Amino acid sequence: MNATASTLRGVLSPVLTPFEADFSPSVQRFVRHCRALVAQGVGLAVFGTNSEGNSLSVAEKRALLDALVDADVPPSRMMPGTGTCALPDTIELTRHAVQAGCAGVLMLPPFYYKGVSDEGLYRSFAAVIDAVADPRLRVYLYHIPPVAQVGISLTLIDRLLSAYPGVVAGIKDSSGDWNNTKAVIDAFAAKGFDVYAGSETFLLQTLRAGGAGCISATANVNGAAIAASAAAWREPGADERQAALDRVRAAFQKRPMIAAMKAAIATGTGDEGWCRVRPPLVELDAETRRGLDADLDAIGYARPTLDT
Amino acid sequence: MNATASTLRGVLSPVLTPFEADFSPSVQRFVRHCRALVAQGVGLAVFGTNSEGNSLSVAEKRALLDALVDADVPPSRMMPGTGTCALPDTIELTRHAVQAGCAGVLMLPPFYYKGVSDEGLYRSFAAVIDAVADPRLRVYLYHIPPVAQVGISLTLIDRLLSAYPGVVAGIKDSSGDWNNTKAVIDAFAAKGFDVYAGSETFLLQTLRAGGAGCISATANVNGAAIAASAAAWREPGADERQAALDRVRAAFQKRPMIAAMKAAIATGTGDEGWCRVRPPLVELDAETRRGLDADLDAIGYARPTLDT
Repeated sequence: MNATASTLRGVLSPVLTPFEADFSPSVQRFVRHCRALVAQGVGLAVFGTNSEGNSLSVAEKRALLDALVDADVPPSRMMPGTGTCALPDTIELTRHAVQAGCAGVLMLPPFYYKGVSDEGLYRSFAAVIDAVADPRLRVYLYHIPPVAQVGISLTLIDRLLSAYPGVVAGIKDSSGDWNNTKAVIDAFAAKGFDVYAGSETFLLQTLRAGGAGCISATANVNGAAIAASAAAWREPGADERQAALDRVRAAFQKRPMIAAMKAAIATGTGDEGWCRVRPPLVELDAETRRGLDADLDAIGYARPTLDT
Repeated sequence: MNATASTLRGVLSPVLTPFEADFSPSVQRFVRHCRALVAQGVGLAVFGTNSEGNSLSVAEKRALLDALVDADVPPSRMMPGTGTCALPDTIELTRHAVQAGCAGVLMLPPFYYKGVSDEGLYRSFAAVIDAVADPRLRVYLYHIPPVAQVGISLTLIDRLLSAYPGVVAGIKDSSGDWNNTKAVIDAFAAKGFDVYAGSETFLLQTLRAGGAGCISATANVNGAAIAASAAAWREPGADERQAALDRVRAAFQKRPMIAAMKAAIATGTGDEGWCRVRPPLVELDAETRRGLDADLDAIGYARPTLDT
């Protein structure tokens, strides 16, 4: 059990990864964006799905994390994604995150082989925790079956929590299935297991049910509003605030999300370099971008400037 | 167009990767197994799906390839898997394979992000080919939608072949869909594009239709017979030989394949260390192994000894 509440609870963003013209990570843009998010009250789930985290090498992820620490971005607000297909890579990234002082790590199961057993997944997570062997380690399990195709069952959570109390600290549920999120909260939240919804669509429901918050892509582009809604969830007007968040999300969600969010930041900052995505993703075409802009203007959305 | 026929045509095996007790790759067992396969006339598609290739780090794959070359296993018989989620990793592995003299590489598309466009996949393959920039490079595309969930369409093949003639050299079709394999052969084989079926189940059909052979997991444990069938496909008795191959495959295929093949090698060599698989896979339980043994004994199957 965690003796103290995590410094991560509330709203986090799988931080978008900007690229240079040669598709190497753009360190300067990345640090600036992370600073802006922290200033808005948004935690940094760097190297998540919407970060194109799985399109980055281990060395690139280590270097970006080091750049944040060197820039005095607080590791107490960081939950880097460290789960990969290959056990040695997951161990290396997790160890590096712990040594950098990160408050937690967000760990995908190994996702290449499909239809694997809970026994195999248990061994994977256990092997990482045992190899890192650091009392500071806090693992947040990453359940995203629509993308990873390999999910994390309640039985597996229960077994991991029993074997590694205090280390296995929570989950991000990106199933999009509220019944699953609710079941995980009901089963494990009372044990100090922090349940994050995978999008702000479920933010209010999650907090009302006893969850910890959300880790949401759109916190990259609507962070202040999402964080304010989370902070004031018990106050009057919560449902109206939730509805306003939903309108912004809808505009991004009906386009390719990562490219759409990058386009909004490009417009907001006047820096078209922000539009770049690494293959296999592609940037928005001109027509899709015009449609996004029209939808965002119609709801009075203010694009991110990354000013702090 | 390839000026000369590839030294790879015929039968290849996604070579099983043996592990030590600490789950590090077992170099000695690996080299011995590769030597035995080459002696049977089987090419080495190391680091494939059945190699647990995506459970290995880039450094581990580089070291295993170096160990083979150092042991004088011929690179003219090697088609290592080099496709990963992350472009820099795919580039590094592909460059290393070319520099080691490998006759080709087997390249998965980036497989974390689902529902990506042909444009994005084209950019991924093109970025690797452009970065490696070596006239010796021969890329075999790896189409395995049941596992990777990201496939390679005929439109994409056509575009890559047009842009990189001679470099884009063939495909492994592990769709399990003969209609797709046939369509790829019909569209591209005449241009010198080598089509390999993803299992010996389709070996005779593939060769009769004008394909190059097969790259099959069970070539790890039935290599001599599969290679002999491929070599004699025009000779009388081809259908009977195919039926015999199918009986062996069926015994392995109805269990978890990788663990089952490793168990057969463990029994054949008397080296139980061969049973180890890396998480998230698990070894066969005792009852499943007994069932496999009974099925193999019933068809008079001789287990691999790895003697050369």
